[in-house]
Amino acid sequence: MMNDEFQKVLLARAAEVEHFLSTALGPEPVAGEVTRPERLVAAIRHGALNGGKRIRPFLVLETAKLFGVEDKAAFHAAAALECVHCYSLIHDDLPAMDDDDVRRGQPTVHKAFDEATAILAGDSLLTLAFDLVTDPMSGLSAEIRCELAGSLARAAGIGGMAGGQALDLAASVEKPDENGIVTLQLMKTGALIRYACEAGAILAGAADEDRWRLVRYGETIGLAFQLADDLLDVTQSADAMGKATGKDAAAGKGTLVALRGTGWARGELDRLVAQAEDALAPFGERAGILVETARFVAYRQS
Amino acid sequence: MMNDEFQKVLLARAAEVEHFLSTALGPEPVAGEVTRPERLVAAIRHGALNGGKRIRPFLVLETAKLFGVEDKAAFHAAAALECVHCYSLIHDDLPAMDDDDVRRGQPTVHKAFDEATAILAGDSLLTLAFDLVTDPMSGLSAEIRCELAGSLARAAGIGGMAGGQALDLAASVEKPDENGIVTLQLMKTGALIRYACEAGAILAGAADEDRWRLVRYGETIGLAFQLADDLLDVTQSADAMGKATGKDAAAGKGTLVALRGTGWARGELDRLVAQAEDALAPFGERAGILVETARFVAYRQS
Repeated sequence: MMNDEFQKVLLARAAEVEHFLSTALGPEPVAGEVTRPERLVAAIRHGALNGGKRIRPFLVLETAKLFGVEDKAAFHAAAALECVHCYSLIHDDLPAMDDDDVRRGQPTVHKAFDEATAILAGDSLLTLAFDLVTDPMSGLSAEIRCELAGSLARAAGIGGMAGGQALDLAASVEKPDENGIVTLQLMKTGALIRYACEAGAILAGAADEDRWRLVRYGETIGLAFQLADDLLDVTQSADAMGKATGKDAAAGKGTLVALRGTGWARGELDRLVAQAEDALAPFGERAGILVETARFVAYRQS
Repeated sequence: MMNDEFQKVLLARAAEVEHFLSTALGPEPVAGEVTRPERLVAAIRHGALNGGKRIRPFLVLETAKLFGVEDKAAFHAAAALECVHCYSLIHDDLPAMDDDDVRRGQPTVHKAFDEATAILAGDSLLTLAFDLVTDPMSGLSAEIRCELAGSLARAAGIGGMAGGQALDLAASVEKPDENGIVTLQLMKTGALIRYACEAGAILAGAADEDRWRLVRYGETIGLAFQLADDLLDVTQSADAMGKATGKDAAAGKGTLVALRGTGWARGELDRLVAQAEDALAPFGERAGILVETARFVAYRQS
């Protein structure tokens, strides 16, 4: 698949995810809810419907497709994961955390609204994720929905993404060594990307062997994603990224790029792409789009 | 059942919940987690293991027992609900929200640690709740675990508790009328208490008719809980409550007590207790402890 073609598929998928989320995050309460406060709905929509690349739901949909799972069955899990990702961005941007004013070229939620609303918008998105992933409307068995929910919780929580953010906040003081940085990254960005890929196997009820292939693929591209991010942070302008850059260095946070240099990082990205391809080799040509995804994640320019 | 006896049962249950939570919130990562950062674990434990009355998990366990569900099967759901409650306290106490320094006689999490850690501790507890409620170790069917998770999400999210907190923050400016105050309270405190009672019926796979009895009971004691809280806020000292009092009036927030007076509120509490008893009447003496709970909720002194 050519790179242009891949970008087209990615964009089309992102539009589908945007549409699904726009409905789920609408103003009308669902059964079991009282009412959805207007301003909170607006803040949630501001934080979640802003044209991200939607790489995580893309991975859920495409890893599921690898095993023949139809989009319809995978969409709830894909959208749930994106809700978790968007909540994490809203909370990470808060003044008490990374204190960012701009995200995807727009004011962050606490800037466009206020801090309390941003906290609640994040809380609401995180909560909604578990309504979506357990929703029987996906047509999935309850066993699969529960397994998706539990795995998502462990990827996102204290021993995953939230824990990784805590380690990241401590990093400017504690100056972790290379192992410490890798652990932090496996948690902060790696855990959700790994989950995105494992989710396809869970959705399909795939054999353990295949599931672990997807986990290995997910872990590998998770590391590549963060390494590419750290590389872009030192090489790209804030304009190109739609968010502040150069912040890690300014905060005195070590990254692998800072420790080892940009040349090493470029070589490591090549190695990780090759490792991702290896993990997918048993699936043959069916996995072509996931190989493309690994390249995209490693070599993207924004 | 005498009031003293009820207090004994409540205390014994609270100790069981504390024990369960202490294990779930331990420092050791579970399968699917990388590591649990020490300081974040400490903040979570500070926020969750601090001797609350544990009235919500009590309601889950006792409504489940009404239908013959064993404690072992109900404990995960009960603990999950308490995690959601504790997360909401940690986030509500933040400077950007209610800005409280003391909770249950201890410094709030952002005071004992810092704001970022408090945000992440709340996020982690909310996330963990959905790991617990979908955990197959409860021995419940996956259908029941999914239904518990979805209902919990709707009770806690944008159209429930989180939405209610958003309305509450707006209340000092928007001055809601009596209907507005009731809606706010149905969401902010009512939704989780209602869920606690409905959870028993979900756990048991009870008939719709019985489920709606529990929902009506839960809604009624939820209103009583908030009314009692508002009454205590004007009649009790901060020492007796272990948290700041008189804050609603100072913030210019209307409560039903402020609108209608303490005499009306005491009468209304009697009416709500009678209504709760009505809802439980079909269950006969088996529901005695739930009738006691309604009285406790309405007439407690702290």
